[in-house]
Amino acid sequence: MWGMIATWRMAVEGITEASKGLEKGMDAGEAVVTAVKMVEDYPFYKSVGYGGLPNENCEVELDAAYMDGDTLAIGAVAGIRDYANPVSIARLLSEEKVNNFLVGTGAEEYAHKNGFERKNMLTDRAKQHYAKRKKETLDKGLSPYAGHDTVGMISLDEHGKMCAATSTSGLFMKRRGRIGDSALSGSGFFVDSEVGGATATGLGEDLMKGCISYEIVRLMKEGKHPQEACDIAVNQLDEELIRRRGKAGDLSLVAMNNKGEWGVATNIENFTFSVATKELEATVYISNRVDGTTKHEVASKEWLDAYAARIKAPIEID
Amino acid sequence: MWGMIATWRMAVEGITEASKGLEKGMDAGEAVVTAVKMVEDYPFYKSVGYGGLPNENCEVELDAAYMDGDTLAIGAVAGIRDYANPVSIARLLSEEKVNNFLVGTGAEEYAHKNGFERKNMLTDRAKQHYAKRKKETLDKGLSPYAGHDTVGMISLDEHGKMCAATSTSGLFMKRRGRIGDSALSGSGFFVDSEVGGATATGLGEDLMKGCISYEIVRLMKEGKHPQEACDIAVNQLDEELIRRRGKAGDLSLVAMNNKGEWGVATNIENFTFSVATKELEATVYISNRVDGTTKHEVASKEWLDAYAARIKAPIEID
Repeated sequence: MWGMIATWRMAVEGITEASKGLEKGMDAGEAVVTAVKMVEDYPFYKSVGYGGLPNENCEVELDAAYMDGDTLAIGAVAGIRDYANPVSIARLLSEEKVNNFLVGTGAEEYAHKNGFERKNMLTDRAKQHYAKRKKETLDKGLSPYAGHDTVGMISLDEHGKMCAATSTSGLFMKRRGRIGDSALSGSGFFVDSEVGGATATGLGEDLMKGCISYEIVRLMKEGKHPQEACDIAVNQLDEELIRRRGKAGDLSLVAMNNKGEWGVATNIENFTFSVATKELEATVYISNRVDGTTKHEVASKEWLDAYAARIKAPIEID
Repeated sequence: MWGMIATWRMAVEGITEASKGLEKGMDAGEAVVTAVKMVEDYPFYKSVGYGGLPNENCEVELDAAYMDGDTLAIGAVAGIRDYANPVSIARLLSEEKVNNFLVGTGAEEYAHKNGFERKNMLTDRAKQHYAKRKKETLDKGLSPYAGHDTVGMISLDEHGKMCAATSTSGLFMKRRGRIGDSALSGSGFFVDSEVGGATATGLGEDLMKGCISYEIVRLMKEGKHPQEACDIAVNQLDEELIRRRGKAGDLSLVAMNNKGEWGVATNIENFTFSVATKELEATVYISNRVDGTTKHEVASKEWLDAYAARIKAPIEID
């Protein structure tokens, strides 16, 4: 068996491409990095890599992580600017003996010394999004924070190896140096080839209150199906946050076990994800929580066409 | 009941001071920050705050975190330079709605705007340690990494509130921008007033492979005594790392539940910790693993005297 699952519709081209490799025996690490890089490179995905939305200073600061489910090796970067593929830097960091998680200028120095491609990651379109948001919020004294769609992926190869990777520009309009859950082991991602993996998207500040990716893997280790594990963990954290804090931020998780079975849970409406296995060609689903579990519907052609149009639509600044 | 437990001998003065407050009804958050600040301020503790050992560029970069066990609010900084009390910055960050975890220059800007004390945290003694280490390792082409003693504390107040806090200068000779487990929720610390809290010291890169502080709190939630929870989690991660990677880095954990019961486990020899409760005056213990559990002995006067002399002994550079 092989398989991949990822947060959001934006992952589907990467998963489609990496699936071809997995079908031919590609390594799970290579697959997940190949797929995440495609998301990072595409300028119209506005929460990851090139074209990602900037912080309050109009700087694109990126977070990414990579984890090897065989060795539990982890690499991560956070608050890195002007490198094309943070996920590749995270992967190389996972091979270091120590110093596996680097932030800010230290991460940039490492990337430079290791020959990674420098690229100004701030696009004209992202600047238009920034100008519009600023006018609508900051200039009126309103809270500017919006949007935080991490691409997180889990891969399983024919040899039984599993990997996880994440990449994000983080919370739109975040403070300089803010990092969320995506680079944090256990919160944004976790994978163990002997069990399975999980990865998150949503409000990082709340996701890290539950170590939710670790918790889902742990539930799968107890024998739970990935769907049941996701439902339990998401419902539990959502309820705890509401009980203790009055509200819960967005929490959406995808998981796959080492048999290629998968599950997804969310506390938002119409959460999309992308999945492919040896038995299922790359497919986009739309999920909603119904009576404590999660229902997944295949995204219709109309929905997919509307999405494609929406991400390229002109940005109107009043 | 009230109580505090912390990693290492260096915490005992802070715990002694904060204990007086807790006895009079001080808030758990105030107690833990008071105690950690005392460790940060003392120049002869060479792995935390002022006098902390520098990175490979001879810069002191500090990581700290704070967590409120009632609300699960988390604040953290990493890779911050030249601020006197990172733990206080982390605590203020825990009160923000979002942007709770800041790194590098972004963290420094936040500290500056919020009036925190700037201080050159690099002492002459730390420079001597750096020069000695460089000569012994880097100059001979050897790996320079050594020393990574985080102060991590858990506090319980008379009202039943629990908090956690950590502070560290991280791995001595680390790469610029390297962050370990101490600022990462679930790995370096976790606390839930309805259960208990745990915090870690050791090799951050390995501690984060097990989300071990979260795991210990989870085991306590299942009903395990803190000692049993620590033993299970430390032994399990130690074994997994050895099985999959051939070796395990240093792992030492302290935990307390909301009844003031406590536990400690370690995979190193002679791990020291400090603890105080309503029923036990501030005491330093020395721990060793024996037959799968952990034995704690009260540090003798001779040991304590030798420690006090050792941390102030002249540094001889050959």
